[in-house]
Amino acid sequence: MIAVDWGTSSFRAFRLDAAGGVLDRTSSALGILHVPHGDFAAVLRNQVGGWLAAGESEILLCGMVGSRQGWVEAPYLPCPAGPSEIVAALVTVPFENARVRLVPGLSDADESGVPEVMRGEETQLLGVMETDGLACLPGSHSKWAKIEGGRIVSFRTYLSGEAFSALRAGTILGRMMIDAPSDHGAFAEGVARSGASGHVLHHLFGVRTRGLFGTLADTASASYLSGLLIGHEIRAALPAGGRVCLIGAASLTALYATAISACGGTAEIMDEDAAARGLARIAGVG
Amino acid sequence: MIAVDWGTSSFRAFRLDAAGGVLDRTSSALGILHVPHGDFAAVLRNQVGGWLAAGESEILLCGMVGSRQGWVEAPYLPCPAGPSEIVAALVTVPFENARVRLVPGLSDADESGVPEVMRGEETQLLGVMETDGLACLPGSHSKWAKIEGGRIVSFRTYLSGEAFSALRAGTILGRMMIDAPSDHGAFAEGVARSGASGHVLHHLFGVRTRGLFGTLADTASASYLSGLLIGHEIRAALPAGGRVCLIGAASLTALYATAISACGGTAEIMDEDAAARGLARIAGVG
Repeated sequence: MIAVDWGTSSFRAFRLDAAGGVLDRTSSALGILHVPHGDFAAVLRNQVGGWLAAGESEILLCGMVGSRQGWVEAPYLPCPAGPSEIVAALVTVPFENARVRLVPGLSDADESGVPEVMRGEETQLLGVMETDGLACLPGSHSKWAKIEGGRIVSFRTYLSGEAFSALRAGTILGRMMIDAPSDHGAFAEGVARSGASGHVLHHLFGVRTRGLFGTLADTASASYLSGLLIGHEIRAALPAGGRVCLIGAASLTALYATAISACGGTAEIMDEDAAARGLARIAGVG
Repeated sequence: MIAVDWGTSSFRAFRLDAAGGVLDRTSSALGILHVPHGDFAAVLRNQVGGWLAAGESEILLCGMVGSRQGWVEAPYLPCPAGPSEIVAALVTVPFENARVRLVPGLSDADESGVPEVMRGEETQLLGVMETDGLACLPGSHSKWAKIEGGRIVSFRTYLSGEAFSALRAGTILGRMMIDAPSDHGAFAEGVARSGASGHVLHHLFGVRTRGLFGTLADTASASYLSGLLIGHEIRAALPAGGRVCLIGAASLTALYATAISACGGTAEIMDEDAAARGLARIAGVG
């Protein structure tokens, strides 16, 4: 089968064997926002045509390709949800010479009844979470999900990644930052600061004043801001001394693992091919 | 005397009588970032030349004009500070036919030793705070200051205003917002949401999902986001049931007064000419 993780800014496809092992892989920057003329079928055929010619006829897609801005909208499935609920809610898309199906995203509601959504992360979660526990998928919109009995029972989103980018691009904090390699010491100072008294809106101003008073270098302040926001997210999402599985790109999960440890928690970094494994599991392969 | 509040984006000047009353006023958009060729003396002479010709010879300036990006840097004075400490730290600037002096900004340190700064707000505070208490000056960098015995004893800054602008300009939250008049109901919902469980980084994502699920109109989401951030600031800065004096532009102080009341506090909106009165007090006039 062919497993595809098709997000906003990237396209990643895997050819899987009958045991769910990765035989081959391909990727491109043709995320759903960059599909020429909205012709998703043409992009898909172009990307995986060789595997179709070699006999594959089953394609399972996850990610924002199933959103309103994607190919066909696959309505959100409410939590708790596991593989059986997701299989029952797959959306079939017309495509010649292969069966193409979309994995739906999941929805939840927080303690105040405010909606939660994910699209793509549910598949990664099912790919790696074989035991009960807490998982974090860091990113622009970081997700923290609870897994019980192989099902995703609830999740919460934190806007940390996108807030970092916006604060850097649009405030006085960013105007004094100088691009430089990540500064691990400054990142750790930011994580520590997130545990101090005072609200994050106050802590943010300290990025400015520490620069002004010369105790934070302009080349280090982006790392400090990153640590500050990630630290706030972790302290809010992770119970004291808790354990969490990290799923995502290696650079980001390594950063989160450091911060989680500094906040008194324990992190385990999972396989980067979580989406392929999740799609295999949903397809009943392997 | 002539009192001038010269900030980053605006210039406001007042001609005061011997009792500190406002005889005349003028303003322009020639904030310190818009002074042609950095010629502060020329702008000042151009703006208040008529009053100098009429016999004024004493000019007192406050605001960012005393910063590193301004005319001459007036070093920060540490808290606690009142009129006598500020008078002793005035910085004289060369100027023909008049004595021109700059009010220094103030510095403080929070519970963790991270520096705090203000420049201009100290003068507004001294203009209106005749009794002990808590004052808030809302804005891009909102200031909350404690006044005791006529002196500013400590203060804290919240980046709420600038965070609002950056999140609106640089995140998915802003991409779905449609410009519209302020929506008082949505603002109140945002303030209420700030009191719910969960971190502000989580609450921010709810602005997106409520829009997605149709429970928050695209024309109302900017007001909701504003209420959410201002609510977080107030709940962090104002003790339960506390009382605060609001100093600043009428549109902003009215918004804060509504939010403070919704958070269980009491607000009193002060005179908009606080800077002129503070400069008169520092000059010993009136």
